[in-house]
Amino acid sequence: MSKGTVVLAYSGGLDTSCILVWLKEQGYDVITYLANIGQDEDFEAARKKAESLGAKKVFIEDLRAEFVEEFIWPSVQANAIYEDRYLLGTSIARPCIARRQVQIAKQEGAQYVSHGATGKGNDQIRFELTCYALYPEVKVGTGHLTPKHGIPVPVTPKAPWNITPQKLKNHAPSDLFLMTKSPEDSPNVPDMVEIKFNKGVPVMVTHLKEGTTKTTPLDIFSYLNELGGKHGVGRIDIVENRFIGMKSRGIYETPGGTILYHAHLDIETFTMDREVRRIKQDLGIKFSELLYNGFWYSPECKFLRHCIAKSQENVEGKVQLSVFKGHVYILGRESPGSLYNEELVSMDVQGDYDPCDASGFIKINAVRLREHHRMEREAQLKQ
Amino acid sequence: MSKGTVVLAYSGGLDTSCILVWLKEQGYDVITYLANIGQDEDFEAARKKAESLGAKKVFIEDLRAEFVEEFIWPSVQANAIYEDRYLLGTSIARPCIARRQVQIAKQEGAQYVSHGATGKGNDQIRFELTCYALYPEVKVGTGHLTPKHGIPVPVTPKAPWNITPQKLKNHAPSDLFLMTKSPEDSPNVPDMVEIKFNKGVPVMVTHLKEGTTKTTPLDIFSYLNELGGKHGVGRIDIVENRFIGMKSRGIYETPGGTILYHAHLDIETFTMDREVRRIKQDLGIKFSELLYNGFWYSPECKFLRHCIAKSQENVEGKVQLSVFKGHVYILGRESPGSLYNEELVSMDVQGDYDPCDASGFIKINAVRLREHHRMEREAQLKQ
Amino acid sequence: MSKGTVVLAYSGGLDTSCILVWLKEQGYDVITYLANIGQDEDFEAARKKAESLGAKKVFIEDLRAEFVEEFIWPSVQANAIYEDRYLLGTSIARPCIARRQVQIAKQEGAQYVSHGATGKGNDQIRFELTCYALYPEVKVGTGHLTPKHGIPVPVTPKAPWNITPQKLKNHAPSDLFLMTKSPEDSPNVPDMVEIKFNKGVPVMVTHLKEGTTKTTPLDIFSYLNELGGKHGVGRIDIVENRFIGMKSRGIYETPGGTILYHAHLDIETFTMDREVRRIKQDLGIKFSELLYNGFWYSPECKFLRHCIAKSQENVEGKVQLSVFKGHVYILGRESPGSLYNEELVSMDVQGDYDPCDASGFIKINAVRLREHHRMEREAQLKQ
Amino acid sequence: MSKGTVVLAYSGGLDTSCILVWLKEQGYDVITYLANIGQDEDFEAARKKAESLGAKKVFIEDLRAEFVEEFIWPSVQANAIYEDRYLLGTSIARPCIARRQVQIAKQEGAQYVSHGATGKGNDQIRFELTCYALYPEVKVGTGHLTPKHGIPVPVTPKAPWNITPQKLKNHAPSDLFLMTKSPEDSPNVPDMVEIKFNKGVPVMVTHLKEGTTKTTPLDIFSYLNELGGKHGVGRIDIVENRFIGMKSRGIYETPGGTILYHAHLDIETFTMDREVRRIKQDLGIKFSELLYNGFWYSPECKFLRHCIAKSQENVEGKVQLSVFKGHVYILGRESPGSLYNEELVSMDVQGDYDPCDASGFIKINAVRLREHHRMEREAQLKQ
Repeated sequence: MSKGTVVLAYSGGLDTSCILVWLKEQGYDVITYLANIGQDEDFEAARKKAESLGAKKVFIEDLRAEFVEEFIWPSVQANAIYEDRYLLGTSIARPCIARRQVQIAKQEGAQYVSHGATGKGNDQIRFELTCYALYPEVKVGTGHLTPKHGIPVPVTPKAPWNITPQKLKNHAPSDLFLMTKSPEDSPNVPDMVEIKFNKGVPVMVTHLKEGTTKTTPLDIFSYLNELGGKHGVGRIDIVENRFIGMKSRGIYETPGGTILYHAHLDIETFTMDREVRRIKQDLGIKFSELLYNGFWYSPECKFLRHCIAKSQENVEGKVQLSVFKGHVYILGRESPGSLYNEELVSMDVQGDYDPCDASGFIKINAVRLREHHRMEREAQLKQ
Repeated sequence: MSKGTVVLAYSGGLDTSCILVWLKEQGYDVITYLANIGQDEDFEAARKKAESLGAKKVFIEDLRAEFVEEFIWPSVQANAIYEDRYLLGTSIARPCIARRQVQIAKQEGAQYVSHGATGKGNDQIRFELTCYALYPEVKVGTGHLTPKHGIPVPVTPKAPWNITPQKLKNHAPSDLFLMTKSPEDSPNVPDMVEIKFNKGVPVMVTHLKEGTTKTTPLDIFSYLNELGGKHGVGRIDIVENRFIGMKSRGIYETPGGTILYHAHLDIETFTMDREVRRIKQDLGIKFSELLYNGFWYSPECKFLRHCIAKSQENVEGKVQLSVFKGHVYILGRESPGSLYNEELVSMDVQGDYDPCDASGFIKINAVRLREHHRMEREAQLKQ
Repeated sequence: MSKGTVVLAYSGGLDTSCILVWLKEQGYDVITYLANIGQDEDFEAARKKAESLGAKKVFIEDLRAEFVEEFIWPSVQANAIYEDRYLLGTSIARPCIARRQVQIAKQEGAQYVSHGATGKGNDQIRFELTCYALYPEVKVGTGHLTPKHGIPVPVTPKAPWNITPQKLKNHAPSDLFLMTKSPEDSPNVPDMVEIKFNKGVPVMVTHLKEGTTKTTPLDIFSYLNELGGKHGVGRIDIVENRFIGMKSRGIYETPGGTILYHAHLDIETFTMDREVRRIKQDLGIKFSELLYNGFWYSPECKFLRHCIAKSQENVEGKVQLSVFKGHVYILGRESPGSLYNEELVSMDVQGDYDPCDASGFIKINAVRLREHHRMEREAQLKQ
Repeated sequence: MSKGTVVLAYSGGLDTSCILVWLKEQGYDVITYLANIGQDEDFEAARKKAESLGAKKVFIEDLRAEFVEEFIWPSVQANAIYEDRYLLGTSIARPCIARRQVQIAKQEGAQYVSHGATGKGNDQIRFELTCYALYPEVKVGTGHLTPKHGIPVPVTPKAPWNITPQKLKNHAPSDLFLMTKSPEDSPNVPDMVEIKFNKGVPVMVTHLKEGTTKTTPLDIFSYLNELGGKHGVGRIDIVENRFIGMKSRGIYETPGGTILYHAHLDIETFTMDREVRRIKQDLGIKFSELLYNGFWYSPECKFLRHCIAKSQENVEGKVQLSVFKGHVYILGRESPGSLYNEELVSMDVQGDYDPCDASGFIKINAVRLREHHRMEREAQLKQ
């Protein structure tokens, strides 16, 4: 008699293998699930290991295309960045992975889902909030199901972009990085590309010298990851604030994401009205927090995605940039629908613009400042 | 009979020389004023030229120390950045320069101030708002006083960090930059420095290899400018939104400011509570807008500076970083008063932290998400 | 030879009559335009007066229905309120009125529009910004066209909801109010109504005792105006901050708007997710500012209206309330799609809710607070 | 052998009496603690009951003065209001009560604190977060200590301002209210008072007819509670969003708080710069959320209190108002340091204000709108 079925997020590593074995010992049927979101992984080895350990079914799912289109692209539109620095790589992946896990659970009639994320991190939260949001009746297998004692805990957490040494004074060793070359070892000649955007989303990338082009979301993102990686772009070493209230050090590499962040910022500022941009900036900060904290599938995050997408309707054009020695340089931009007006901004052409208006503008803006000065002076005189 | 006295912000260039002559022709006494805020300028040549053109008095004022301490330092505390990219170099200088001009006008009994900034830019606004705020009765000599026709307009606006070509598609020529080397020509070996902060403000910079230290604000800032310049740090090419509502291209170099921006962000996130930081982030964005728009001397900007300074009380410690080929890399940080708790964050040490609490935390956070799902399901069933 | 055609916002009063005459004397053809947005006005008398003074054409336009549907309803959705108190009556009317004026100008080939609003108020700004936004080539006839001297200035500005006495210490005389009874003279028995909302907009109002119902936007709004007026609802006496930077006293009456404000707040909080509401609250504050400052026809206000409307998709249900002696009392509410869950909130039913989760939730929320306490204690010990 | 000492927040009611007995049975020493924050309670009866049930020590503490000065006054300065309607009565009391409980626990060497608040409400959170923040090592007696089964749960929760019926359709019975008369039964003649503020805090209240004055914080607050209660001011029936994510109905009465809210809003808008006010408004909203959610003793709330207090430095003057039939009417205000300038705002006096400046101001503000229109037109032409 089975106690029920568990869909386990399985990495093939020691920790989730232990959980698999333990769950079976406790009388559960276990379905393992491994998502391919672009990480460097031996998926077939993981499949074999899961089967050999008694998994009733093994799902290995290629989510790369939907990850880029449905999760990374909205984050690019939002200029998503956590605490001014972190481009949210792992955070974006989590709801994508958990969504598919929940779909499998529903489809296979499983009442339980489980995972190997530890209790102090953000990933557990991101995972579980997604599960509860999409499958409210599900039981999540931490606490209820998984062992607390007597099982070896994971030794080497393997996460593609997220390495967390505890000592803050030590500089991070360069071999932590998997996707990016060290800027010091990167090429001495820049690569220049042009990224074409439509509705705030990249639709084509062109290598300006080689003429290479990429046009599908997955190809574009992979190409920029490769290009950024080659030039050592997107490495950061930060201290961040976790949702559960502690500070932790994070060392991340986001090569493609960093290029896209800069390119999108540029085309957005170029094509979007100043005040729309200002409102959207706040929405993007809020969106980034929600993403970091695991609330992708929340009513407010859905609302924000809608609003942000709306703001992107006219964000189209091309940005030219170079990547070189760890840095992204914006070189120029053009757009069919830009609000940039060469004649208007020119110092040589007067056109419709009357300098007298500027004086009036300034004087009216000064009304309040002068009143404030008057009041302060009066207050001083009274003393 | 003099029509009155004008204090003219005088650069020694063609444009303000024309204004000087014209003002005298109109019957005004002219006092010229030139501020030294660290730009590369032949101050003595400017003095001689002003005198030869009939200036009644010539003021050349070294404002460098007060510029760094009273204007740049608060901006560092605020992580001031306009539209996510521009570090506000010129914007910060303007109220400092205009404040002294107003002081001179009051002290010399001048009813007028004048300047050479053109009618489409931000600098006119920043200048005039400061004048009105600090000397409400002053007449500003654009419109009233200065010539509109028949005077050659300035040909080569010379601004230390601000170069504005009109064509957006063209890449900016490298010789625009005055303070920074091209990253491609910069050294192949990084320099590593440690910046010590107290109350959110740098108090010492140490070159880690050479042992050089700087400890006064002006020395620290000059040294970082030099260091950043040597490594090509802080060049940007952006389109920005001017206060008067048009978009313009700006090509800026802010070598020292860029290093300080990254270093301060790091020490701040390391030492400041997450939620205080979040509130302060919004205040900093607002502060940056005010700075850009010329409202340094406004009640709201004064209020924000007070609040931001308050938030910096515990922002102390040291940040180690390297500068290399146009980029700043944070290497590590330490602080006597950090909220970082190695034991708490460690995955190996359980300590006081109970994983069960995390499950409860997640479940309570999910209450709202599950309710939302319930409602959506009910809504679908009704249809 | 005519100098061109002016469309003049004409009230029939002394001031705009003077402008009409003066414009004709200067050689312009004048088309007068008077909008009916529900104010108490003798429209036919105004028509005759305009004709007798030489207007080439007279437009009297009934904008009441579009005013309610296209301008008031979005403001209700936004909970629009300026500086926490002012329900923005006049501000909402202005873009509606100016839009039609611009349409007439375009249709009649007029190059000019003009109005009688004075230079210190908000209405001039609201009027002119709308004109420039919708008809950028238009010339607005203040400064260019209208007389500055030698014409009697308006003596009794007549504005339906906006009365501005200058003395702040004096209490406003009760006869200032046109739409509302004094609460002291209002009925001693409340009226109770039920307002039904769909997508955040009222679709039916029912008098609970009398059974009267209203179902068109204009009928609903007029009925609530009448009902609120009868009970003295919606009178305020405030000091407000004008866009041009001065403070002014405003005494307003907004009977129907006040009822709708309270009813909408109630149904919105009842049906909207907490965090969506929080984001939308900020958008509504921003929207209110834009409205007050005259930016209805701006890209950012359009963007906000879209986002706010999106937030209202599930805001449906019925609110019961009573109006009595100047106050609105919410009595109860119901909704088919509420997030309110009687079982979940009940103290007697445990259901799915585990009190242990609350303890975990609290403890995790306290992690940060305890760390802060630890740091403060350490800092004290060092001293 | 005692298992340790518990300080129990004891109300004298059935529920906390049960907890007391049960704790003793489990082997704990129990100290009871009852705070007087102005509620209607028989404190001596509670003392006797606690003693008779075996309390080792009984603390009955009069916190009324510190409650008003240290907790209510900062909330008045903040215009604290939750979700636009709830004046946060209970929320403000909780940290005041818990702070004293923690002080007693430390002073008496107690390792435990306990309370009778149930697991679904906000009060448990507010209580426990305060305890953890001020005494991080404390154990809170829910879960660990208190009985989960076999003990009668509280039947009639008695809370001064907070009554929670579950049925939303039913109108709240009038006898729920303890402090306020029904507006229908309240006097037919208004009372008029003048409230004098200094630094945003009331320092004197004067009955305009009777001449009565109150000058201590506690007297002022008590008097306004009485006055508001007499006129039925401050009753609300709302649905609110609890911190734990569920919606609940709350029926509150806050007579004195409502009067102070309106009076403070008025004097603040009168004396504070527009833009400072705008920033402070956001801070106040954030402060209100923190207060509601129990974070009074958090670094961010402390920071906000500091910033808000700073904003109040010039908030001084007198507000005259009347209370009548459930409503507060502002009648007038005066201030020695107001930014209100009669001459500046007057339509009759031109003074220093040039209408031309307003035209320039408007035209510059329209630059952006016209550019937007141009772009939209171009986009349409392309289609």
